[in-house]
Amino acid sequence: MTNRFLKRRNKIRRYVIRQRLDAVLISNPINVRYLTGFTGGDSYLIIGVSGDILLSDTRFIIQIEEECPDLEAYFRSANEPLPQSIGRTLGKTTSGKLGVEAGSITLAKYERIVQALPTWKIVSTQNLVEELRQIKDADEKRLIRKAINTAYQAFRSLPEFITPERSEIDIRNELEYRMRLYGAEDKSFPSIIGAGARAALPHGSPGLQKLAGQSHLLIDWGAITNGYMSDLTRVVILAKKDKKLRTVYETVINAQEAAIKAIQPGKRCNEIDTVARSVISDAGYGKYFNHGLGHSFGLEIHESPRFAAGDHSLLKPGMVMTVEPGIYLKDWGGVRIEDDIIVTNTGCEVLSRLIPKSFDEICCLF
Amino acid sequence: MTNRFLKRRNKIRRYVIRQRLDAVLISNPINVRYLTGFTGGDSYLIIGVSGDILLSDTRFIIQIEEECPDLEAYFRSANEPLPQSIGRTLGKTTSGKLGVEAGSITLAKYERIVQALPTWKIVSTQNLVEELRQIKDADEKRLIRKAINTAYQAFRSLPEFITPERSEIDIRNELEYRMRLYGAEDKSFPSIIGAGARAALPHGSPGLQKLAGQSHLLIDWGAITNGYMSDLTRVVILAKKDKKLRTVYETVINAQEAAIKAIQPGKRCNEIDTVARSVISDAGYGKYFNHGLGHSFGLEIHESPRFAAGDHSLLKPGMVMTVEPGIYLKDWGGVRIEDDIIVTNTGCEVLSRLIPKSFDEICCLF
Repeated sequence: MTNRFLKRRNKIRRYVIRQRLDAVLISNPINVRYLTGFTGGDSYLIIGVSGDILLSDTRFIIQIEEECPDLEAYFRSANEPLPQSIGRTLGKTTSGKLGVEAGSITLAKYERIVQALPTWKIVSTQNLVEELRQIKDADEKRLIRKAINTAYQAFRSLPEFITPERSEIDIRNELEYRMRLYGAEDKSFPSIIGAGARAALPHGSPGLQKLAGQSHLLIDWGAITNGYMSDLTRVVILAKKDKKLRTVYETVINAQEAAIKAIQPGKRCNEIDTVARSVISDAGYGKYFNHGLGHSFGLEIHESPRFAAGDHSLLKPGMVMTVEPGIYLKDWGGVRIEDDIIVTNTGCEVLSRLIPKSFDEICCLF
Repeated sequence: MTNRFLKRRNKIRRYVIRQRLDAVLISNPINVRYLTGFTGGDSYLIIGVSGDILLSDTRFIIQIEEECPDLEAYFRSANEPLPQSIGRTLGKTTSGKLGVEAGSITLAKYERIVQALPTWKIVSTQNLVEELRQIKDADEKRLIRKAINTAYQAFRSLPEFITPERSEIDIRNELEYRMRLYGAEDKSFPSIIGAGARAALPHGSPGLQKLAGQSHLLIDWGAITNGYMSDLTRVVILAKKDKKLRTVYETVINAQEAAIKAIQPGKRCNEIDTVARSVISDAGYGKYFNHGLGHSFGLEIHESPRFAAGDHSLLKPGMVMTVEPGIYLKDWGGVRIEDDIIVTNTGCEVLSRLIPKSFDEICCLF
């Protein structure tokens, strides 16, 4: 366990040395967790040229002993503000160069650190840990698989619950409850549950309308297990003979399959987005696919890179991403299908491949 | 509805004029919601000397029409970064002075705004909206009461579920599920459910241990309704004849009642903390009450001010706060009792007074 975290910190340390910094201050709690295993809050990690120290407070003594046995820690008292303990740790009167995480530290905290270290130069770093987090290791991949499987178990238990008198909110409540019965710590984001025309809102929140009379039900949901997440979307078919629904649905599936087939290391994220978008455009629905094709995830639900027109990042083995094309027709409804993939050395593996997806399979399931 | 939000914005506008700013940029989504009623994300509000504009994107057109019908809005396209749309709105080439929310804007966003407005002076503001949010109006008070009542309904339905073979996690899952069945949008924070010795960890997360053989069960939970929160703690007595448990429990109750009696406008937050702390110290447990007495809440679960040694804020009518003394004895367990109060013109009203609290009432309930 420890070695894994130390290995990650050593990668940041190499950056510290290369950039001629004296240390970098990790303030984003997700990044602190990724680099130490500590799951509590209100704590900063300092990575220096020759060692690391976790700045925390007395509430977390026992937890840090358990979660990070080999890490040096400093526990400030309730009266000592965090910037002051940074000053104490780094030496207020010596001088040096400290990197901070510009993407997550607030301006107020930055200003207080500048004040607490008057002889130091404070410089912005961008996406330092976030870039490491793009490549998932074997352990992370296992935890993401577990999060996908937990979400799936809850979903597959739902059919008998989805009846005409249920509302979107009923289904949200039940699905999220059942994920926990199957072992999830929590949902990975507020579920999107949209019936009929309401499924045309890509990020709508569930309402009290009942399912009776609706043609389909979009369910976008995910679980957290051991901090790692999953993110899936399926569309439950209620009007099984609806031809337009089948056409739209199968167009989305075709777009998704073409994109998945195109994924491989060395390609650019925007290329994959274009592959899916072309399939949908060729079917005449181009302007109704109004969001990016997908995004990375892991300890957070939205990580970089993204499958989107503006993202030219190169795909690398170990990236875990969603592939989620959609078609949204106002007043009619929307269809989105979302799977989770990991980029391999030669292409990609669909981590959620066991979850039924074809129009006919979904019809049989519900 | 609109008038309420405009009234709030006008208070910020008076600050803008007083400080000789040209505008202030509200970037904290909770503050945007408080000032406009808009519940979506990724949007900034500019409050100027003579008007307001909400900077959003095309995903939110319908939602903003519904939630903020009288507010001017600018919808940027997916390609236009937010700082650029700030530049476009304020005029890149003119000059002026723009306030930003230092407590929530990230350093990276601040740096991009500085770049996008090269002729403007960008200055930090501190707790501008947070200070307004300290005083709850009648509508907010009603919503907080609703959140308290929703949380209580779920709690009072639990007794038959709390049996020796249940674990802390079982109880968390059931309680949070039932809050939703009673109408909560979600929990207001991850519930703390601690049995026996584990109740001594003020912020422990629930585990798989069963209740069998435990003396008591601490439950710290809350609901969200219409965005507003509640925050409550009760201790379920499992060993009804445990004398030490009764002594500790009644000491905590006495401390809480003394504090509640002391609350009135014009007193300082730290004074109220001291009142509770003295009762616990006099009973010989002083060093086992190792956190502040309480905190404000509303749209967020932790707002300012706090009942704590270091907080000298004056109490004012309309402040809504928790009162939650506790005694934590390592390897034995912990007792915390938490109610929600609103400061009135002459003292305070306990918003959660209907929830049973005395040792004997709790014994009868479970």
